[in-house]
Amino acid sequence: MSGHWLQYPEWTWNIAEEMQPTYVHQWVQQLNNITSTPDMIVYGAPISRSSISVSGASLYPSEFRRAWKGFATYNLDEDVDLIHYKVADAGDVEMHTTDILLSHRRIQEATTYVAKHFPSSTTCMIGGDHSTTACAVRGIKEAFQDETIGILQLDTHLDVRDPNELGPANGTPIRQLIDGQIVEGGNVFNIGLHGYYNAKPLIDYANEHNIQMVTLKQARKRGLIKTIQGALEQLTAKVDRIYVTVDMDVLDISVAPGVPASTPGGMTSVELFDSLLEIGKHPKVKHVDFVCLDPSKDSVVAETVKTGVYAWLQFVTGCNLRTE
Amino acid sequence: MSGHWLQYPEWTWNIAEEMQPTYVHQWVQQLNNITSTPDMIVYGAPISRSSISVSGASLYPSEFRRAWKGFATYNLDEDVDLIHYKVADAGDVEMHTTDILLSHRRIQEATTYVAKHFPSSTTCMIGGDHSTTACAVRGIKEAFQDETIGILQLDTHLDVRDPNELGPANGTPIRQLIDGQIVEGGNVFNIGLHGYYNAKPLIDYANEHNIQMVTLKQARKRGLIKTIQGALEQLTAKVDRIYVTVDMDVLDISVAPGVPASTPGGMTSVELFDSLLEIGKHPKVKHVDFVCLDPSKDSVVAETVKTGVYAWLQFVTGCNLRTE
Amino acid sequence: MSGHWLQYPEWTWNIAEEMQPTYVHQWVQQLNNITSTPDMIVYGAPISRSSISVSGASLYPSEFRRAWKGFATYNLDEDVDLIHYKVADAGDVEMHTTDILLSHRRIQEATTYVAKHFPSSTTCMIGGDHSTTACAVRGIKEAFQDETIGILQLDTHLDVRDPNELGPANGTPIRQLIDGQIVEGGNVFNIGLHGYYNAKPLIDYANEHNIQMVTLKQARKRGLIKTIQGALEQLTAKVDRIYVTVDMDVLDISVAPGVPASTPGGMTSVELFDSLLEIGKHPKVKHVDFVCLDPSKDSVVAETVKTGVYAWLQFVTGCNLRTE
Amino acid sequence: MSGHWLQYPEWTWNIAEEMQPTYVHQWVQQLNNITSTPDMIVYGAPISRSSISVSGASLYPSEFRRAWKGFATYNLDEDVDLIHYKVADAGDVEMHTTDILLSHRRIQEATTYVAKHFPSSTTCMIGGDHSTTACAVRGIKEAFQDETIGILQLDTHLDVRDPNELGPANGTPIRQLIDGQIVEGGNVFNIGLHGYYNAKPLIDYANEHNIQMVTLKQARKRGLIKTIQGALEQLTAKVDRIYVTVDMDVLDISVAPGVPASTPGGMTSVELFDSLLEIGKHPKVKHVDFVCLDPSKDSVVAETVKTGVYAWLQFVTGCNLRTE
Amino acid sequence: MSGHWLQYPEWTWNIAEEMQPTYVHQWVQQLNNITSTPDMIVYGAPISRSSISVSGASLYPSEFRRAWKGFATYNLDEDVDLIHYKVADAGDVEMHTTDILLSHRRIQEATTYVAKHFPSSTTCMIGGDHSTTACAVRGIKEAFQDETIGILQLDTHLDVRDPNELGPANGTPIRQLIDGQIVEGGNVFNIGLHGYYNAKPLIDYANEHNIQMVTLKQARKRGLIKTIQGALEQLTAKVDRIYVTVDMDVLDISVAPGVPASTPGGMTSVELFDSLLEIGKHPKVKHVDFVCLDPSKDSVVAETVKTGVYAWLQFVTGCNLRTE
Amino acid sequence: MSGHWLQYPEWTWNIAEEMQPTYVHQWVQQLNNITSTPDMIVYGAPISRSSISVSGASLYPSEFRRAWKGFATYNLDEDVDLIHYKVADAGDVEMHTTDILLSHRRIQEATTYVAKHFPSSTTCMIGGDHSTTACAVRGIKEAFQDETIGILQLDTHLDVRDPNELGPANGTPIRQLIDGQIVEGGNVFNIGLHGYYNAKPLIDYANEHNIQMVTLKQARKRGLIKTIQGALEQLTAKVDRIYVTVDMDVLDISVAPGVPASTPGGMTSVELFDSLLEIGKHPKVKHVDFVCLDPSKDSVVAETVKTGVYAWLQFVTGCNLRTE
Repeated sequence: MSGHWLQYPEWTWNIAEEMQPTYVHQWVQQLNNITSTPDMIVYGAPISRSSISVSGASLYPSEFRRAWKGFATYNLDEDVDLIHYKVADAGDVEMHTTDILLSHRRIQEATTYVAKHFPSSTTCMIGGDHSTTACAVRGIKEAFQDETIGILQLDTHLDVRDPNELGPANGTPIRQLIDGQIVEGGNVFNIGLHGYYNAKPLIDYANEHNIQMVTLKQARKRGLIKTIQGALEQLTAKVDRIYVTVDMDVLDISVAPGVPASTPGGMTSVELFDSLLEIGKHPKVKHVDFVCLDPSKDSVVAETVKTGVYAWLQFVTGCNLRTE
Repeated sequence: MSGHWLQYPEWTWNIAEEMQPTYVHQWVQQLNNITSTPDMIVYGAPISRSSISVSGASLYPSEFRRAWKGFATYNLDEDVDLIHYKVADAGDVEMHTTDILLSHRRIQEATTYVAKHFPSSTTCMIGGDHSTTACAVRGIKEAFQDETIGILQLDTHLDVRDPNELGPANGTPIRQLIDGQIVEGGNVFNIGLHGYYNAKPLIDYANEHNIQMVTLKQARKRGLIKTIQGALEQLTAKVDRIYVTVDMDVLDISVAPGVPASTPGGMTSVELFDSLLEIGKHPKVKHVDFVCLDPSKDSVVAETVKTGVYAWLQFVTGCNLRTE
Repeated sequence: MSGHWLQYPEWTWNIAEEMQPTYVHQWVQQLNNITSTPDMIVYGAPISRSSISVSGASLYPSEFRRAWKGFATYNLDEDVDLIHYKVADAGDVEMHTTDILLSHRRIQEATTYVAKHFPSSTTCMIGGDHSTTACAVRGIKEAFQDETIGILQLDTHLDVRDPNELGPANGTPIRQLIDGQIVEGGNVFNIGLHGYYNAKPLIDYANEHNIQMVTLKQARKRGLIKTIQGALEQLTAKVDRIYVTVDMDVLDISVAPGVPASTPGGMTSVELFDSLLEIGKHPKVKHVDFVCLDPSKDSVVAETVKTGVYAWLQFVTGCNLRTE
Repeated sequence: MSGHWLQYPEWTWNIAEEMQPTYVHQWVQQLNNITSTPDMIVYGAPISRSSISVSGASLYPSEFRRAWKGFATYNLDEDVDLIHYKVADAGDVEMHTTDILLSHRRIQEATTYVAKHFPSSTTCMIGGDHSTTACAVRGIKEAFQDETIGILQLDTHLDVRDPNELGPANGTPIRQLIDGQIVEGGNVFNIGLHGYYNAKPLIDYANEHNIQMVTLKQARKRGLIKTIQGALEQLTAKVDRIYVTVDMDVLDISVAPGVPASTPGGMTSVELFDSLLEIGKHPKVKHVDFVCLDPSKDSVVAETVKTGVYAWLQFVTGCNLRTE
Repeated sequence: MSGHWLQYPEWTWNIAEEMQPTYVHQWVQQLNNITSTPDMIVYGAPISRSSISVSGASLYPSEFRRAWKGFATYNLDEDVDLIHYKVADAGDVEMHTTDILLSHRRIQEATTYVAKHFPSSTTCMIGGDHSTTACAVRGIKEAFQDETIGILQLDTHLDVRDPNELGPANGTPIRQLIDGQIVEGGNVFNIGLHGYYNAKPLIDYANEHNIQMVTLKQARKRGLIKTIQGALEQLTAKVDRIYVTVDMDVLDISVAPGVPASTPGGMTSVELFDSLLEIGKHPKVKHVDFVCLDPSKDSVVAETVKTGVYAWLQFVTGCNLRTE
Repeated sequence: MSGHWLQYPEWTWNIAEEMQPTYVHQWVQQLNNITSTPDMIVYGAPISRSSISVSGASLYPSEFRRAWKGFATYNLDEDVDLIHYKVADAGDVEMHTTDILLSHRRIQEATTYVAKHFPSSTTCMIGGDHSTTACAVRGIKEAFQDETIGILQLDTHLDVRDPNELGPANGTPIRQLIDGQIVEGGNVFNIGLHGYYNAKPLIDYANEHNIQMVTLKQARKRGLIKTIQGALEQLTAKVDRIYVTVDMDVLDISVAPGVPASTPGGMTSVELFDSLLEIGKHPKVKHVDFVCLDPSKDSVVAETVKTGVYAWLQFVTGCNLRTE
């Protein structure tokens, strides 16, 4: 944006290029510049007018990319440089200003398009609010009609509110998919639920449809990573591909204020980072999204945006470490 | 909300009731409690998912009412107590969570309902974003089908962007009304335009449809009050009823940060207050709205919300002073 | 506050009422509307001019109630719906504008009134600063003169500063009660102390009066829940009723900035939530208060207020689970 | 506070001392260091627990002094260096933590002390909330019992609420003084009133007691400086000494958010600065205070604190320019 | 940055291209893309470690460009579309991380380079702090060695502090130029000075070197535009080319908090906008800079950044309207 | 600063002096007031213009001292009163406004001066950015030329970027010391590294020079305290004196937003506090610094500043508990 292209004399060039560190914005390529099949395709779905409460989650895709320059491609904890894992950025799906249904259809069609043209690539959607997950999963289903899809959801909420009442709002995606027979309730694992944020009738719906609920408290008792592994194993036994959806509001309000409905009692960022590393390693995980991150609620240090990028890189690291 | 209804002993009641000052929240009555025809009916239209940029203007109606307790009913400048001017609060129009067109229809129908049942009352809609104005004016037109409507708009923008492109977004209401033949372009006065916030094609549209544009600079040269009076006189000669729409973004960013698109170079709050006093006095002004005030962008002192309440009270004072 | 009472047509009523989730503001009843004895009575003591440093804790009771609508009555972790536990809201005790002693007397008398008239109900005072605890405990003592009272205090501070020096300020309540022979020092347990926030002479006072101090570090080593249980058992053996006082400054500054003297090194919110669940379960705990939460220091996401409501609900859940 | 007293080698001293600019903190002397009678004595009255709404005005005296280093002693507009006008800082009156009446008595006694011991010095009290003005004026009266006192008040409010109801709160000082027969109502000029911030019964009280009210609108029409001059002339004809009280809430919310009850429609900072220059010039003005400035409501740039220091320097400049 | 390059189906393209408004980011071209001589060349000098106090002014060039998309090219007040005035963006001069002198030399050389290669283009430097002005003017002098340069400075400060003491800091540029015999003191006009922000010795220096000082108060009395015109006329009579430097701290703190040393008592934004329109019209003005705008001090609405862009566009509009 | 030196009557002195708690600001003495050799000497190095990104770390030394009054000298967790451990404050090293190299030289010389004159005292430098560490260690080396120095670094970054490229910036100090042969790479332990904040070439440099890197993840697995102890033991075996440098950015962004490059995934404050207690106990630790704390990024509750003071007190407590 503010590059240094002014052609002034030679002293500009005295920088030791070979020592130049490599950052994320230098590594991710635009999809139309890439010459071989990418390992992962990232695309933005910048809509949040479908959110129940006021949300600036539509601002996240561009803030997500802006924050890349603050992250190196080298993961010190795992001693791995992501640079050989090819990530392509397909840009944002064009949203209509006011027609939510049209915008949703576009997200679905764009997802189908990406999934069909790059069937071996992992897809990664950057929301937008959680309504986009229903669109993306429907798009995946359309691309792979004979395959069954399981969902691993990290979330404070069940997101099974009634679309007949609310329309396709961010509280409804899981119910849209179950009622729409895209995904079976029993193939949905929700890990991270806690506290007083799901009304009783929603629990009843989840139980009736056999949604696998693990509260954060239960997961901690069992071991969060073991819980994650268990969920992935069970899904692996039952479905053809796993879609992972990360509602950033699964995090505690003290580490992620920048979500429309931040709550105390949620995950720590380290718990989320460890979980995503583990999830990324699993070969059946083909799709992921990160939703409901509202940059406008962050303080001046952009804590939630930075946490969102870190979380994504943990997932990418996991993918990179896949042995399969 | 946090009343003092605990029945503890007598020392609670030692407050000199007769000296009790009177504040706005004590004066405005709920519409269904009122026994005679109110002079003004206030109703909220809490929608902002129709806004082009992220907006929390849907939060304004409730913040507007919360702020009432900080204002006395006595206007010191004009030496008038508003207490004998009857204002009824009809509550908010129920918005659908995601169906913008349905929400818009409800605003229109609610406005028709109010206008028909209380034809002698001034209507005052509290937005919500500027898309609501198109709904309200259509609702008025339906209630008074044989009457012509003129619009006095205080705004930084023309709001004539193309609904064919954007849908019924907050940049389009005036164009919706002109293209929909509800209001003639020549019967729209826009006062307060300035700077670099209206692209050339919008000016072209305005000129083609004969919209009366007065920049803030021109208005200040002429005298803002004289400009307002001139506009009202011209409208009076041409139309049956005048609808006033106040987009709070007409104000300068330093006095009204709490709008989705705040700009430098706008009106001072005193200019807006004086204008609204004058506008309120005019007998042909039957309808008013205040839109695009986003409380979530205010600092801790709630500057724009307070300015919004003050602006509304100035209009009410003007109505109270009507000699006709 | 901003209800939807405008009587427009039928489409308002298409909401599936039976699926309507139940939130806290729908569950808590006003005391004067209730027909049977409530299980718990909540009342506000909105005073903070007795605070040593500038404090907006007087704003908490109304913010506490405003935040209810963000919480469901269903506790997912314990799989219990609080809806059958009857909570009544008695409103706020009326505070005098400047007469602190009078305000304090009113809190004391109001507490006595509630305790006497509803002896089987748990009382829950929402402060206000910590000076209110001295008033409330004196009020309880007056209601049950023959009973001994023990105090379980979760706090960063001892609150035994000298009222002869400071008057009845928020640093003094425990000393007021000990010096006033309302409570014996040995019947006061303080859990959560840490760091550099209690000057040596205060420790000396505590030791002289046999106050049971457990630092957060000690409690963590032993197990916080075990420490709590141990304290409750010891108190049970010695006193007739236990009063629990939660100074929200016991929490770490990163999770609770909204207190007058937030400190690093404090409890996590999960630790507080688990403690309050345990405390609520204990049948001898008859009284609780939550004090020193200053909403004006929160960021835009209201983190401390939300944490305050969550903490209270954990205590209520505990009460609900009492087997006795 | 963070001086440079480490005795490292000589290169520290290469600063051209003779070119060293002179700032306010270098100019004002502590009262006990001064060897001749000062022209002005500044003292702080850091109390705000007497404020009706939550207020951090008690923090102002120390923030006022901290901000001095950002101001030079040279006034460019008037081409005058204040350096020869001797200002002494007497420190803050020691406030009791909770005993408001005692604190108020101390302010009164301290004022009497200063006024008696330095009868030729102008006194300048830095509040604290507006309740301190009643104390200070009573203190002046005690020092000069045979003299009549007139008040020139720059304020958005009348401050004549009933102390029988509120106690000696910040809404009551003028009424305390009138009812206490310290000052006659007819000798009080209030300039700056505007809008909806004084309930009708307060206006009635003011009229009954013949308080001279000039709204900001009236003053602007007449000329604010002429209005000020007129008020000073009338007071001069009637009283022996004039006390000026500046409630910082007379300023518009956009220039002074840092007051407990900031309002739109108030004075600009230039209007206040010009007024204080004029007021400072008048030889009968012997006492001044600046009250109700709450630094905790400022943004990171400390706008209201800076405005408070500037305002005070304008008054000092005026004093410096006195010809008498 | 977050473009929409994903190649999904045709419905993307249903936007009426011909109605597409034109915004600043679409109008300004990169210098190396331009085919004919530009009318103006913009370049960034992102340094602020030379600032006396902590400053984030180095962040302004990129924030300046990011804010372009919020501004149309059409100036409504002057009824002129800037689209035919060719502005080229040369990018930012590469700054060294810690070597201030080297960075300053680069700014100087880059300015010489631009001025020499595009002698007919107006140069516009975007700071950075005010130290950059000394570099730029020296660069201009090098490019046009036989020509005399006059400076029109809009500033709260004289910026004649001693570089022997401070080094080439942001308080010194005018003195650097006078002492370095690049510009004569008598050819420097400073308009906008006010208050207590220039220590006496600096005034003495200015007087000794015959700097033309006009306080804001004097300028308002005379008419600000007349004052500007007078200064430009006098400079025109004496010098070959005029360099205009706009220190954004000339603005009042209420409209421009985002400067390192914001002050009350400064210019309104309208005064600055009108001045820059007038200045831009003058044919001898060949160079301009905008300095000391620190975006990190803005609130969430980016008020100072927006004001900076607006101010720049006013200058461009003036240039566009030049008749010569 | 705002002391109470006004000599009003006797009621000022009714405070029970013997009960007066003791706070840090009352305990730390100015170096030039001290009569015996201090146990620790604190000095500030208020420079941050050497920081790669914009930093207000130069503001920390004065904010550090301002925050002292909020801390008692009594450490409750360790039951020790620090009052007998003598800490002297040497003030701040005088920084040049723009000459970074000169400022760095002064830090080095001041450190040498302190170390030579008080060889038995522990030195504690308060930064400033991390560039100051290179200066301080060089200064130590100069004072004790025959001794070898080891470094224990708590940091998110390696700080081995190339000073040939960046100059002596805050990303380079460890490399400056290794390349300058002041410290051997193998004698540097870095604990706390995590995530994506060190580019691959920096890791390569660290490996080539045998820097001992322990990621936070590894340290937690092993036990953080054990890891610290192990590092100190290894250093003890190899070097004569240990220098500890605490880059506050080692902390997680949720507990320490006030650093130039805050990151998620860092240490908790309790981990840092425990580590510093342990480090302080070790007799070979002779020098410590705390750097890169930028108070201007804190929220209104000053969370990072408070954490910085607490961390320092933990180190002091450790020193106090030394048995050697």
